[in-house]
Amino acid sequence: MSAYSDLRPQEMSKVRIHSEFWKNKITVNHKSTIAACIRNCENTERINNFKRAAGTMEGGFQGYYFDDSDVYKVLEGIAYTLAVEPDPELEKKADQWIDLICSAQQEDGYLVCYFILGTNGETRWTDMERHEDYCLGHMIEAAIAYKHAVGKDRFYRTAVRFADHFCDQVGEGKKNWVPGHQEIELALVKLYHESGDAKYLRQAQWLLEQRGKGHGRGTNIWENWGADYAQDHMPVSEMRDITGHAVRAMYMYAGMCGVVKETGNAQYLRSLDNLWKSVVQRNMYLTGGIGSTRENEGFTEDYDLPNDTAYCESCASIGMIIWNQRMNDLYGEAKYADVVERELYNGAISGVSLDGTKFFYVNPLESDGNHHRVEWYGCSCCPTQISRFIPSIGQYIYSVGSDGIYINQYIASETEVTVGETKVRVLQETRYPWDNVCDIRISTKEGGSFLLNLRIPEWCGRYRVFINGEAYEEPFAENGYMKLLRDWEGETGIRLVFDMPVRFVRAHPFVVQDRGRLAVMRGPVVYCAEQADNETGLDEIAISPDMEAALVKSGLGIDNIVLRDGDRQYTFLPYFAWDNRQPGKMKVWIRQKHG
Amino acid sequence: MSAYSDLRPQEMSKVRIHSEFWKNKITVNHKSTIAACIRNCENTERINNFKRAAGTMEGGFQGYYFDDSDVYKVLEGIAYTLAVEPDPELEKKADQWIDLICSAQQEDGYLVCYFILGTNGETRWTDMERHEDYCLGHMIEAAIAYKHAVGKDRFYRTAVRFADHFCDQVGEGKKNWVPGHQEIELALVKLYHESGDAKYLRQAQWLLEQRGKGHGRGTNIWENWGADYAQDHMPVSEMRDITGHAVRAMYMYAGMCGVVKETGNAQYLRSLDNLWKSVVQRNMYLTGGIGSTRENEGFTEDYDLPNDTAYCESCASIGMIIWNQRMNDLYGEAKYADVVERELYNGAISGVSLDGTKFFYVNPLESDGNHHRVEWYGCSCCPTQISRFIPSIGQYIYSVGSDGIYINQYIASETEVTVGETKVRVLQETRYPWDNVCDIRISTKEGGSFLLNLRIPEWCGRYRVFINGEAYEEPFAENGYMKLLRDWEGETGIRLVFDMPVRFVRAHPFVVQDRGRLAVMRGPVVYCAEQADNETGLDEIAISPDMEAALVKSGLGIDNIVLRDGDRQYTFLPYFAWDNRQPGKMKVWIRQKHG
Repeated sequence: MSAYSDLRPQEMSKVRIHSEFWKNKITVNHKSTIAACIRNCENTERINNFKRAAGTMEGGFQGYYFDDSDVYKVLEGIAYTLAVEPDPELEKKADQWIDLICSAQQEDGYLVCYFILGTNGETRWTDMERHEDYCLGHMIEAAIAYKHAVGKDRFYRTAVRFADHFCDQVGEGKKNWVPGHQEIELALVKLYHESGDAKYLRQAQWLLEQRGKGHGRGTNIWENWGADYAQDHMPVSEMRDITGHAVRAMYMYAGMCGVVKETGNAQYLRSLDNLWKSVVQRNMYLTGGIGSTRENEGFTEDYDLPNDTAYCESCASIGMIIWNQRMNDLYGEAKYADVVERELYNGAISGVSLDGTKFFYVNPLESDGNHHRVEWYGCSCCPTQISRFIPSIGQYIYSVGSDGIYINQYIASETEVTVGETKVRVLQETRYPWDNVCDIRISTKEGGSFLLNLRIPEWCGRYRVFINGEAYEEPFAENGYMKLLRDWEGETGIRLVFDMPVRFVRAHPFVVQDRGRLAVMRGPVVYCAEQADNETGLDEIAISPDMEAALVKSGLGIDNIVLRDGDRQYTFLPYFAWDNRQPGKMKVWIRQKHG
Repeated sequence: MSAYSDLRPQEMSKVRIHSEFWKNKITVNHKSTIAACIRNCENTERINNFKRAAGTMEGGFQGYYFDDSDVYKVLEGIAYTLAVEPDPELEKKADQWIDLICSAQQEDGYLVCYFILGTNGETRWTDMERHEDYCLGHMIEAAIAYKHAVGKDRFYRTAVRFADHFCDQVGEGKKNWVPGHQEIELALVKLYHESGDAKYLRQAQWLLEQRGKGHGRGTNIWENWGADYAQDHMPVSEMRDITGHAVRAMYMYAGMCGVVKETGNAQYLRSLDNLWKSVVQRNMYLTGGIGSTRENEGFTEDYDLPNDTAYCESCASIGMIIWNQRMNDLYGEAKYADVVERELYNGAISGVSLDGTKFFYVNPLESDGNHHRVEWYGCSCCPTQISRFIPSIGQYIYSVGSDGIYINQYIASETEVTVGETKVRVLQETRYPWDNVCDIRISTKEGGSFLLNLRIPEWCGRYRVFINGEAYEEPFAENGYMKLLRDWEGETGIRLVFDMPVRFVRAHPFVVQDRGRLAVMRGPVVYCAEQADNETGLDEIAISPDMEAALVKSGLGIDNIVLRDGDRQYTFLPYFAWDNRQPGKMKVWIRQKHG
């Protein structure tokens, strides 16, 4: 039972990316990031742990108990990459890893290296905080991705066996269980979609229902971090405000969306609506970053958004994309896709250097020059998260409902969707977000009348539409989507022209850290001042909306924005591209110049 | 427990209206409409019925069984009017009526003339369709209004006695009951607020819970109209789409809002969200009118919005205001106040002639010249509805939340609100919606920092803000409200300047009746072409957005819009002002002129 809209995302395997920007990112991710992740997984014992668990190598477990999950995330990234650009070498590597993983699976389906190897004398399914289900969740996601991308299903069958084992262990009348780091819930929803077996959906909902009942009492998380850290302080159906660890929260909300989409659960829906406002309107940075303190990798108080000590974990921004895409399909309202866009061009991709080799775990909006990307982390969730996110960009572009096609993101690409029984080819040609024009070509032999729903970006005050070269005046728009209806038989060209000036934006007035400050944006892209580009010390720069603004090509191949104030000029570069040159100060929120 | 926001409407008795437009409407309503309603209630036996019920006049009941409600609605209108402009004569008349009403009350508190007089041998509380609770609801609303306006509480005590009688008759373990025409639910919520007694709130919720259980089987409504006509076809918590009779639906939704506001009921909230989309996005005319057929005074199919045979009952538009104001306070989101505004300047006030003497029950968007206002109706819900609505305008202007003051409507007025513990005077000077400038003055001796939330009308693409004469650049806005924060000590002047060009708008493409047509708007006001102003036959007029538009003062004292197309010119007047001169054709949706 669908909740509000019947939108479903267009599967990424059916979307071909043409965007130079994203194609470059995918290639860099393929050649550098995934290569680095593979190297690091192998060098840091993550792969060896599977060998030891399979009994083909001597020795005990090494690393963090959740390290298996990094291997799965990299495999998921490899799967999406192979779907975009075949690479026999890479596929061979993945197959080797998968063989290793499968060979480590126990008779009963169990598969977490840390416990198979009896590390620290701990036993399976006794400590809810030990990420066993988290590892399973990432395995499920990777296995489904690999099945779709490459067509081989050994990994998938292994994941299903482990999932079945999990369902046998915990559940109604079995063990109580509250996932210590949520992820399994959204993975089980995916598995439900893949397998058609409703038991996985029921298990996801059951797990969500266990939260807030006190099952976690006595665990490490409860005692040392507090129940709210892991969102176990109240039933999810009563949650109104985000608390605790940001990534855990994002994955849980995404899982809740899946349950709502299939069951229409009104309590969850109300929680999600409130939580969305809590996150997006009271706890999100301009870049889409969330989590304002390192203390708990998460949240403090509403509107407490310090710029220099911000946490803004890269994984959390990607989590926001995962959650908001699901919210968008739940409601058919573009304000969620607007958040996806904000993350895409800011908080998410800032997590990786332009050459794909170095990573930010933490993404502050201001730096005194001492915050820099590094090549790997002991807890390396972010690099592996980026490795799977970048090549998955295709899944965020289109959705399909019974009323027609939704274009959620303007990214040069093409796809073939089926609306009702009509096959329709959709092609986007655009340099968006660097250019303000998007050309969309709709082709269908069969003809048929349906809506083409085109997101009007929240940042865009005015836009024009041309259909087959003719101005189409006064288009109707609703829920953030412009709605075009016609008989689409043959080929139709639609040109969107968005007004895309340099904008000066202000924060919510309750954010004390940003009072008297402005930030510079163009389209969805947040800009920052980096010392490397500016002669003036960053703390001396003051800007005002009446300054002349110009776009200037930078050495990084991206448009910078130059503001002129008399003889002085200040240069801003896209936030995601900072810290790719010599170290130096950086600032997003700049003092406003008065009079 | 509040659902989303803690907004409460500023009580109308604390709001003084300065707007020439609305003051004139209130005066016309006072002098003409209320005078006519009084005359008609007395001439049509409505008042005599009370005399007969009290035993001071001979004879049986005359008229419709729900006629008592008209008397209450007029009394409610009188109360609001007296609060705005004292009138001893009018107050005397009201007191006489109230004495009559009170003297008709039975020992046990019962008070519906039709049944007291044993009309047609029918007995009380046996036929759920007979509007006994509907009459009680209107009595409660009128009695609370009169108590607030005049300070006399005899009527209120009578209403409470009847309400208590009702609660004794129907409820858990007593009689099953499904109100045949909803209204009592929202009235009971009002009574809960007035009395502080939660039993009235519980009764409202209990009544809502009875719907959809089949209690109505066998009644006239079920058998002749169908259960969905009276929204009794499913539990309210499962409703997603509006059905049946429009006014019944509006009142019920308003009652549900009241329950959600106090209890946080998530099921109701989900219904309300869905119903709102069903009404506003799929079943509402440009004028805010709802109900597309006379057949059931209500709804047919989504997007079926015929212009000439539209129903658009005046009462339903006012019902939309009542409901949407509550939605706005529930969410703190301006999209609901936008609907209130749409109704205020279009669908609601079109129901009464400019001189206040003639009424539309039905408000089509196109007429061949045969649809005209009349002085009274046998079923006269609309005139009496207008009589109580016009002087109540003050309650839709301001809301107050813990974070500050919300200005929902730009209507010249003043009020004193209390934010936290700070007393603040708010003054609006504006000719809005005819002028695009609104000057707001905030004064407080005590000082204090809070948000001033200023609605950005949905029709407005660009606006500017000046604080104490200085441009305030890049204001922050969210949920449709611009949010200004400062220490407000002393006096602060805020000027809002809205871009307010003549606009050409298009309907949702699914509305077949409006395809290839445009409508003319300026600000929130919908314009129409009336034959009286145009030499060209209305069916020959075709317009396009590139035509030159000018504002021209009309004989009715309102700005008309004149579109020029070469030598030809077409005149449009505000929709609400049509049919105030000689009979003739009228049209809102005009054919688009191409190339």
